[in-house]
Amino acid sequence: MIIDGLQCGYFDRDVFERLKKGNVGCVTPTLGFWEGAVPSLESIDAWRQLVRANEDLVGIATTAAQIEALVAQGKVAILLGFQNANLLEGHIGFVELFADLGVRVIQLTYNNQNELGGSCYEEHDSGLARFGKEVIREMNRCGVVIDLSHVGNRTSREAIEHSTQPVAITHANPDSVYPHKRNKTDDVLHALRANGGVIGCAAYRNISGDEFCSTVDKWCELVARTVDIAGIDHVGIGTDKSHGTTQRDLDWMRKGNWTRGTDFGAGSAARPGKAAPPDWFKAVEDLGNVEPALARVGFNAEEVRQLTHGNWLRLYRTVMGQ
Amino acid sequence: MIIDGLQCGYFDRDVFERLKKGNVGCVTPTLGFWEGAVPSLESIDAWRQLVRANEDLVGIATTAAQIEALVAQGKVAILLGFQNANLLEGHIGFVELFADLGVRVIQLTYNNQNELGGSCYEEHDSGLARFGKEVIREMNRCGVVIDLSHVGNRTSREAIEHSTQPVAITHANPDSVYPHKRNKTDDVLHALRANGGVIGCAAYRNISGDEFCSTVDKWCELVARTVDIAGIDHVGIGTDKSHGTTQRDLDWMRKGNWTRGTDFGAGSAARPGKAAPPDWFKAVEDLGNVEPALARVGFNAEEVRQLTHGNWLRLYRTVMGQ
Repeated sequence: MIIDGLQCGYFDRDVFERLKKGNVGCVTPTLGFWEGAVPSLESIDAWRQLVRANEDLVGIATTAAQIEALVAQGKVAILLGFQNANLLEGHIGFVELFADLGVRVIQLTYNNQNELGGSCYEEHDSGLARFGKEVIREMNRCGVVIDLSHVGNRTSREAIEHSTQPVAITHANPDSVYPHKRNKTDDVLHALRANGGVIGCAAYRNISGDEFCSTVDKWCELVARTVDIAGIDHVGIGTDKSHGTTQRDLDWMRKGNWTRGTDFGAGSAARPGKAAPPDWFKAVEDLGNVEPALARVGFNAEEVRQLTHGNWLRLYRTVMGQ
Repeated sequence: MIIDGLQCGYFDRDVFERLKKGNVGCVTPTLGFWEGAVPSLESIDAWRQLVRANEDLVGIATTAAQIEALVAQGKVAILLGFQNANLLEGHIGFVELFADLGVRVIQLTYNNQNELGGSCYEEHDSGLARFGKEVIREMNRCGVVIDLSHVGNRTSREAIEHSTQPVAITHANPDSVYPHKRNKTDDVLHALRANGGVIGCAAYRNISGDEFCSTVDKWCELVARTVDIAGIDHVGIGTDKSHGTTQRDLDWMRKGNWTRGTDFGAGSAARPGKAAPPDWFKAVEDLGNVEPALARVGFNAEEVRQLTHGNWLRLYRTVMGQ
């Protein structure tokens, strides 16, 4: 069974069936990138409708026990997640309200600095700001997973220091293995290890590189090198798979409302458009090939269990409660 | 005639009459601190209604020529200003829309870091962030004055570097004269001077100190010491006078929605509540005593003209157009 710490794009019955086919037992879709409170509520509503219409296949989970129960029923558990803190619109009280509505993962910053802290794409990372400290305390209290994937390295270190709960880097890789602004420096991964957190290895060409995208075994070597840095208890899967994302969607993800200029996000002037999926991961059901590949690159059965879902489940149980 | 670069609180016919009595020809009230786009539109609407109901006394100005025309008619010109960029809600396009609705002053950050840059009260000042650079370009294009009063010193320096127009520090003092996080370091004031900008000296006890609040002549000495640093062409008045502000308002200004804890703003644990107004400035009409006092502390007639309104008018003419 696989837990995927982050996917994005458009989900529908066909995607749910493919997730099941790929042995995915739990996935965190992206309910928002730049959206404020009201469109975030709309997104939660849309997800509730989608899940109700497909309740034979999926269910929304808010605890580790619910994930396990859904998996036992042969369903895919959905964790509601946001890739930005804009849904809070600066309200400390909204953490609890969105948590009550089922939100279980919030990334502190997306691609730009905000009131909470600095992003990986800012020239200078502010570190954790005043509101960021308040929000971390409240996310800890309300059982919401702190996601540091797009957060700057300095802010990530400070967030880990301030959090009384383990944190997540739901979708990124080690910068020392594949250098990229979106990937995490070893000191952040060492802090994550000490914190009891988990990094989900990404299978996104722009931040994983062509070599690790060539075969599933190669990608599992990326996982193995991440384990060398963060430790076997602190690595999982967070593919960053996007479903049906068009150039228009990519423009929104990268430029939102904040610029009329050009922004390449994790891409570059040389690779401005949508990155091709990894050669081994053209469809989401290909995730079913990861388990045997992890065994082939040398992990034993217990380690494969940890990497595919055990570490995420432990983190979810710790943060969200049973 | 006096131009006051910043006041806040509740304005009504009585305040307008007192402003006239105090020889104030133009004032920038605070239309918002933490509010997003919709409450900011409501605030603009409320100001339009208030000004219409008192059109024999006041008018909204959007150019330097309109300020002069209103003053020639014996009226007080109102410049619509916001103490935060939250009204943009992250939309670069909203700069032009709010400018079209008459907004002429926007402070890049209030007391907390935001998507634009760092605040004076943050432990670490991020400098100008990606969205901040975009907003400055757009404010320059749309004729909106960039206000750096509560902005961190690093972000202030970088904002001055990025702005093709002179910028304002509408309400602050030199940190080397009265040390306070809200006051500006000499390097920022030297950069402001080189940029052609203006600092409005504040008459707010928490950031001006008891001594400079004791008499109007003492306060004019604060102005003189600011001139020593920033130069005679770059100093004006920005009292930070608040009208009818209660403890509840102060709580909103300081804590907004961002914390359930305690925040003293420009105050301190020793001085948590509303600061007493300067002894010489208990009512806004006392501003009428500033002109003669500036002469008494040694400024000649032309210098008094510059300090009381000439420098602000030059800045407004440059930024907003004639």
